[in-house]
Amino acid sequence: METHRRKKVEIVIESVRAQDALDWITSYGVTGHTLIPHVTGAGHQGRQAGDDLTRLFENVLIIAITREEIARRILEDSVQMFENYTAIVYLSDVEVARGEHF
Amino acid sequence: METHRRKKVEIVIESVRAQDALDWITSYGVTGHTLIPHVTGAGHQGRQAGDDLTRLFENVLIIAITREEIARRILEDSVQMFENYTAIVYLSDVEVARGEHF
Amino acid sequence: METHRRKKVEIVIESVRAQDALDWITSYGVTGHTLIPHVTGAGHQGRQAGDDLTRLFENVLIIAITREEIARRILEDSVQMFENYTAIVYLSDVEVARGEHF
Repeated sequence: METHRRKKVEIVIESVRAQDALDWITSYGVTGHTLIPHVTGAGHQGRQAGDDLTRLFENVLIIAITREEIARRILEDSVQMFENYTAIVYLSDVEVARGEHF
Repeated sequence: METHRRKKVEIVIESVRAQDALDWITSYGVTGHTLIPHVTGAGHQGRQAGDDLTRLFENVLIIAITREEIARRILEDSVQMFENYTAIVYLSDVEVARGEHF
Repeated sequence: METHRRKKVEIVIESVRAQDALDWITSYGVTGHTLIPHVTGAGHQGRQAGDDLTRLFENVLIIAITREEIARRILEDSVQMFENYTAIVYLSDVEVARGEHF
């Protein structure tokens, strides 16, 4: 069977900004995503607790499978997009069966 | 240290079909998995909300590490297996220390 | 834009040992992580249910992006570190925009 190489874009971002991030990647042509809520994290801008009372800083992990050129534009533009708040973005290679879905 | 290349199989599928999907990959010889519950998603077949009142369309993310030949058969057969409902399947490369476990 | 290759380290481990695992990877120089709670799994040491009454055996998935040499030392040392209990560790390739953060 012929399979298709795509890129997986992963974004870890505060829950309160998840919809903004989804709208943002959709504007590049991303047609689907998976969102994992209630994740916690720590990074270069400090610890963020998912069990924080206010939940203001709870994170989500957004996963999107898309074409390489779209993924590269998202990664490149993420530097400016997320300049002022905590978010991490990374790409990896995946292989799918139905290329027309991604 | 010698490490071992394996494939990661990821399946996003409705929660109500998770057990079917686990039984299905086990039938190929997959010996372990990780399941992330309560994920939400949107794709070519429309939005699926994890906070839906009925939870009928809540998704899970299943992750399994296995040998390449098994992963390829799962990816290939997934087209027919998931023909009639929303599921996405993709493969990627991983490296493990203890090859006998996967 | 110049991007940077890093390794993603993923660790699936019992929730009660998550902090130990985080302290352990931090000791190698890992500077950030994402933790997904409440995951379930089954593997070569048997099934572990996230909805277990005691929650003793509920798992978490820890994701860390780091430099290759750190990731390789963690993978290698994980064999001894997790010799006596259920944990799985695997590496994969990722690409990031801001190398100084990982």
